[in-house]
Amino acid sequence: MDKVNLAEKFALFSEHWNPKIVETVDDYDVKIVKVEGDFVWHKHDDADEMFLIIKGSLNMDFQDRRVVLQAGEMIVVPKGVEHKPHADSECEMLLLERKNMVNTGDAATNDLTATVERI
Amino acid sequence: MDKVNLAEKFALFSEHWNPKIVETVDDYDVKIVKVEGDFVWHKHDDADEMFLIIKGSLNMDFQDRRVVLQAGEMIVVPKGVEHKPHADSECEMLLLERKNMVNTGDAATNDLTATVERI
Repeated sequence: MDKVNLAEKFALFSEHWNPKIVETVDDYDVKIVKVEGDFVWHKHDDADEMFLIIKGSLNMDFQDRRVVLQAGEMIVVPKGVEHKPHADSECEMLLLERKNMVNTGDAATNDLTATVERI
Repeated sequence: MDKVNLAEKFALFSEHWNPKIVETVDDYDVKIVKVEGDFVWHKHDDADEMFLIIKGSLNMDFQDRRVVLQAGEMIVVPKGVEHKPHADSECEMLLLERKNMVNTGDAATNDLTATVERI
């Protein structure tokens, strides 16, 4: 039951597209991640995914449109929906995902597939 | 799949201790709430509860100690743990709770028990 200071946690790492677990709520992990550049198109067939922008800006591409998110904005990508996050410059986000969700979803395991550690 | 701007949502209401649902992730609700003053001692027997401070400061009292949370800080109160939130001045928070969680938990239904609407 210790508190988590997000800025302190973000200061602990610098790599991109590598989420870190900072808390757990029942069967869900609260993660933080720094991103920059392009991710891969993917979807999660059995779980929704929440993105809350803490710093910077994120483009969330769907097959038919782009949603641009600024700090203080959030979006939930429903299960089964293909999406591709992209950030022109570094963006810090808080994620909420069911435990053991693979970040690259249904896309083949690739260089972006992260092993998630707790910090 | 529309984005949610938290500041715009907070501007829609002024009452305290009355959480509003802004998004849903699987079986969990993402809520926002403004609080000021004292809440009641309570616990949730079967679900954890996450508090992320967006603006202001919150005291989270447990039976043996107080955790003081500032904007950018979060805490997860585990299931079964008695807690009492308190804010000396207005505090804005984002909550993550399992659907249909009653805000006053095991405490008898009282004036603080909220009917949660979606905004």
